[in-house]
Amino acid sequence: MTTLDANAGYVVIINTFSVDPAKAEELLSVLIEGTEQGVSKRPGFISANWHMAKDKRHVTNYAQWRSEADIDAMMADPDVRRHLQKADGLADRVEPIFYELRATFKSSE
Amino acid sequence: MTTLDANAGYVVIINTFSVDPAKAEELLSVLIEGTEQGVSKRPGFISANWHMAKDKRHVTNYAQWRSEADIDAMMADPDVRRHLQKADGLADRVEPIFYELRATFKSSE
Repeated sequence: MTTLDANAGYVVIINTFSVDPAKAEELLSVLIEGTEQGVSKRPGFISANWHMAKDKRHVTNYAQWRSEADIDAMMADPDVRRHLQKADGLADRVEPIFYELRATFKSSE
Repeated sequence: MTTLDANAGYVVIINTFSVDPAKAEELLSVLIEGTEQGVSKRPGFISANWHMAKDKRHVTNYAQWRSEADIDAMMADPDVRRHLQKADGLADRVEPIFYELRATFKSSE
C-alpha cells in the first residue's frame, strides 16, 4: 500500500508507456521485474505503483521519490538502464512527467 | 491522505490536462473548486489527488472511483459538466485514461 500526502513533499513521477495491447502484459512484467530487482533498492525510492490501462494501450507508473537528485542517480545506474532499454523495446512511447502533489480529497462516506 | 492498494479494486483515472504554463495555476484552482463543490460529493467517489507538473505544462488528477458506472453518472451531472467546460477553456488538451492498479512497491527503509 502507498500513501499520497501533499505534505510529504515527495517528487512524483507519472511515467506513461504507450504500447500495443498485445505486448502490454509482457511490458508490465519487465517493468515490475526492474522495479523489484533494481529501482526499489535505490536511495531515495519511496514507492512505485504499476497500472494497466483498461484497454491495455498504456502501462503507467505512479512513483514517489525523495528528491530529483535521487532520480538522476537512479537513471544513471547500469542495471536500471538495462531494464529500461528492455521496456523501451516493447513500448511505442515513454512519457515521464515530474509533479508535486498539491491537494487530496477523500470521500466522506 | 489517499491510500493506493492493488486489492481495493477501484477504478483509477489519471486525467492529464496539457496547459500553457501561464494558465496552469488558474486551471488547477478551477479543477480543485469543481472537485470540492461537485465531484467529491458524487456516489462512488473515493479520492481525487491534484498534481502540478514541475514545469507547469500539465495539471493531473489521480482519481479513484468505486466503478465505471459511478464515473458515467458523475460525468452526466450538469454541475460537474459546467466546471469541466470551464477547465476545458483553459486547457489545451485533456486526456483521461482508465486503469487498474496492479502492483505497489514501497521502500523498505
